[in-house]
Amino acid sequence: MALIVQKFGGTSVGDADRIRAVADHVARTKNAGNDVVVVVSAMGKFTDDLIRLADDVSPTRLPRELDMLLTAGERISMALVSMALGACGVEAASFTGSQAGIITDTDHTRAKILEMRPDRIRDALNAGLVPVVAGFQGVSTERDITTLGRGGSDVTAVALAAALKADVCEIYTDVTGVFSADPRVVVKARRIPKVSFDEMMEISATGGRVLMLRSVEFARRHGVPLHVRSSFTWEPGTWIVEEDPTMEEAVVSAVTDDTSEAKITVGGVPDRPGIAARLFRQLADRGINVDMIVQNTSAKGITDISFTVAKTDLAAASETCDKVKDEIGATEVTSDDNIGRVSIIGAGMKSNPGVTALMFETLFQNDINIEMISTSSIRISCVMRAEKVAEAVRHLHTAFGLDAA
Amino acid sequence: MALIVQKFGGTSVGDADRIRAVADHVARTKNAGNDVVVVVSAMGKFTDDLIRLADDVSPTRLPRELDMLLTAGERISMALVSMALGACGVEAASFTGSQAGIITDTDHTRAKILEMRPDRIRDALNAGLVPVVAGFQGVSTERDITTLGRGGSDVTAVALAAALKADVCEIYTDVTGVFSADPRVVVKARRIPKVSFDEMMEISATGGRVLMLRSVEFARRHGVPLHVRSSFTWEPGTWIVEEDPTMEEAVVSAVTDDTSEAKITVGGVPDRPGIAARLFRQLADRGINVDMIVQNTSAKGITDISFTVAKTDLAAASETCDKVKDEIGATEVTSDDNIGRVSIIGAGMKSNPGVTALMFETLFQNDINIEMISTSSIRISCVMRAEKVAEAVRHLHTAFGLDAA
Repeated sequence: MALIVQKFGGTSVGDADRIRAVADHVARTKNAGNDVVVVVSAMGKFTDDLIRLADDVSPTRLPRELDMLLTAGERISMALVSMALGACGVEAASFTGSQAGIITDTDHTRAKILEMRPDRIRDALNAGLVPVVAGFQGVSTERDITTLGRGGSDVTAVALAAALKADVCEIYTDVTGVFSADPRVVVKARRIPKVSFDEMMEISATGGRVLMLRSVEFARRHGVPLHVRSSFTWEPGTWIVEEDPTMEEAVVSAVTDDTSEAKITVGGVPDRPGIAARLFRQLADRGINVDMIVQNTSAKGITDISFTVAKTDLAAASETCDKVKDEIGATEVTSDDNIGRVSIIGAGMKSNPGVTALMFETLFQNDINIEMISTSSIRISCVMRAEKVAEAVRHLHTAFGLDAA
Repeated sequence: MALIVQKFGGTSVGDADRIRAVADHVARTKNAGNDVVVVVSAMGKFTDDLIRLADDVSPTRLPRELDMLLTAGERISMALVSMALGACGVEAASFTGSQAGIITDTDHTRAKILEMRPDRIRDALNAGLVPVVAGFQGVSTERDITTLGRGGSDVTAVALAAALKADVCEIYTDVTGVFSADPRVVVKARRIPKVSFDEMMEISATGGRVLMLRSVEFARRHGVPLHVRSSFTWEPGTWIVEEDPTMEEAVVSAVTDDTSEAKITVGGVPDRPGIAARLFRQLADRGINVDMIVQNTSAKGITDISFTVAKTDLAAASETCDKVKDEIGATEVTSDDNIGRVSIIGAGMKSNPGVTALMFETLFQNDINIEMISTSSIRISCVMRAEKVAEAVRHLHTAFGLDAA
């Protein structure tokens, strides 16, 4: 007998039929002798509808009220899932984030969990019930309703699994797991049966769309095994676990791509200490997240600094750089939103020195120019023209032996 | 400066336009120097949509989960109203029933308020905010979310007005007030500017559709003046207040009608003590509300007992009477769902002995047969054929001088 947290996303509870299917699956898990805690998102596009309504009544968004509004969605789906479980003969009880003891800071619309006090969830489990918990939401130290931001329902599930010391946290979604590349780009992409937390963090950070980096980090920190799988086919998906030292590691597990970023280059920067710090402090103060940063070796005491930001932050970032340009003695600021990044990820990279060479050779042989490079111990990323991304992913997927037979 | 509770029903917050109109009105009230507490229902038919979804996922209704589900509706409208107030330059904050300190018993889907602890509402008022409170909902002594049943949002508004010692509780709806008769039946029906709690209770109990009996009772018990008015025209409506002994009372204030009930007659009952008690105890134990009861003087120790119940309870009531028939020695049970009740209500009736006579004469002159009669000190009700009801209301409205000029 295990304690299993099962999280169902918006498409998994998208209509009455899906909700009944979810209840049937939860009931099977429970009837097999397990304790189950269910975490649900809002139904399908319900949250988007609410945001449209909010924009319709007011031009400005009040974070506290937006949180109050959006949390209605999970309240609906969790009550419906509990009812559907009842119809399957399984006694269930729904709990809001507040009732489940998810205590957050007061940073509305993107609150962070400060403490978990899931006493009522434990009581419900001890009474033989299936607790059904609202994802994405908590209650602040000021007793106001908060939401956890993008990917918040996954965070709820992982945090509950950690607090309850669950054996596994199952994340049900509309895909069958984590793939060696985006299956829309690479026809021969394979589902990865098992991947380490470190690899999954790199996959999430470089374009993998299945799990947000934040919940993988949370799971790693608390040692919660994740199992990402489909609520449409119910087949086993991808396990995300601690690295197993007895297993041989794949040299490369996945090829990811990301065309959501743009590049800014600040040119003719004097190569003096403190210049980069001043630039990136200004960007940070405007709340702009900078991803890759590359600075070339200087020629004649002058260098270029290039970095990538989300396309949605490009205008604000360019404006900030223009303002700071004179102050740091730079000569020009240029931006480019027609770029893409392709990354290869693999824990086995650490002990296989030929990986970088093979990546660069493959891109060169296919006439793909590399504009920026950044690496970690288990990842290599190359920035290139956006229109070359799909091609690059396919060639690298083949070159590293990932193509399905 | 006054403290005003303003309650807006479902049609009043039915879409984004209506919500903006409500916010504009609240802002005017606030800017005129008043403290305002807003209570809202769910938007339009949203609650009906949720009930349909619930029926779709499960054949049985789980009261606790149904309450969790339905309370999502007010959460949405209160957040939207707060946002719209912000857009009008008025600082507002929304509060769930639980946050507003509305403590109820654990009787899900029809909970009763046990205690009001509106500390957060008082704090918000002291901080100069407009608190926007979810109607219809509370939190039980078991910390579960409850709903207050039909008309629950009015009860929330009245209970808050009482706890906060508000000067008035304004109930905004889609009609302009309480009328001397249903304007769909009587073209010349007039809006009543002022009516006493006692009269309003009789009006609500005998077919007036504007306010539920429960909230009028609550308001009377706590001495909260009510003002029922339109959120579409914003004109002054009907005040419901303590009887004013200095004012001359209208002999008859309103004529009401109700065709939602059916009649059951238990015939050939031995006229012995305890027989009626046994019958009505059985009905009460099945949760059937009995309205009018008439027992004729017995002839030869045998009598008939007739009573009315809601048509929706008719099957259960007939079945109960059939079961108890032999036990009480009755000879037959008949039922009739083609009846209607017409009532006249007026505080001045007490000192005007001719009222009953005029009512009966008016019905007689128009060939309307009276099947049952019941009276209180300020009301006379007659049961008749359903198809005679509209005609009876019109003739009585004229006979008692209520027709608008």
